[in-house]
Amino acid sequence: MDELPGSVGTSGSFSLRLGQTLFSSSSLLFMSFGVEFYSYTTFCYLVTVMGLVIPWSFTLALVDGYSVLVKCPIRQPGVLLIIVVGDWILSTLTLAAACSTASVIDLMLQSHAPFCTPKLCSRYRISAILAFLSWFLSLASSLLNLWLLPSL
Amino acid sequence: MDELPGSVGTSGSFSLRLGQTLFSSSSLLFMSFGVEFYSYTTFCYLVTVMGLVIPWSFTLALVDGYSVLVKCPIRQPGVLLIIVVGDWILSTLTLAAACSTASVIDLMLQSHAPFCTPKLCSRYRISAILAFLSWFLSLASSLLNLWLLPSL
Repeated sequence: MDELPGSVGTSGSFSLRLGQTLFSSSSLLFMSFGVEFYSYTTFCYLVTVMGLVIPWSFTLALVDGYSVLVKCPIRQPGVLLIIVVGDWILSTLTLAAACSTASVIDLMLQSHAPFCTPKLCSRYRISAILAFLSWFLSLASSLLNLWLLPSL
Repeated sequence: MDELPGSVGTSGSFSLRLGQTLFSSSSLLFMSFGVEFYSYTTFCYLVTVMGLVIPWSFTLALVDGYSVLVKCPIRQPGVLLIIVVGDWILSTLTLAAACSTASVIDLMLQSHAPFCTPKLCSRYRISAILAFLSWFLSLASSLLNLWLLPSL
């Protein structure tokens, strides 16, 4: 069987997973480091979702790294299905969190809220952008693995 | 070939499309009828997305109704692919709009914003809930058609 670049067990997938881990960790850090995010439901939601994405992506990055090293990619349809569904659920949650955060920041800036100083708001904004990037990579992983699924 | 309930050209699909049209129209009406939604980017975005979903779902409802009547469902892979991709893009946009609206309403209620009277805010909230329902049906259509795709 041909190897599809980016499907599980390839170096492309390893890069995608590393990117997801990196972007979601940075998003979490920008949101939570020295910032009172817990006053807002939306920001708490983003932090929760990122807390789920980081271990998932990191574990799969380790699996991919191992598969690349031993040159033996995972090809069990059951395992692949779990990965596709997990990726899809997490990417939906990430999209929801990123959109919510972006729209709340937009409203804060629009209404000149006193609780949103320029420095704080730019941090929140960077966090939302990083969450979007994480969503994009997660979606790419999910679609590439879904593409591989019927051929197994 | 067995007919998958809910795939394009079946009465299940017709019901799903009717539901999507109904929910998205109601969401649009609750948001825009006598309410100054255009002051907020998020609400404008919801209205725009609903304005895209309504004609798409309505057209496909007509196609499904016709297919059911003449008992000749569409089975061209190309057409089905366009429907799956279109549904998927619209469901992503709907999810983004619904989450953004929900989080903005939450922030408005939390900060006791003067521009959010209880009557107005409950309208916005109903609109967001209807958008979520529309997303759910749109996703169901997309997944059922995607399931059918490899068998053509």
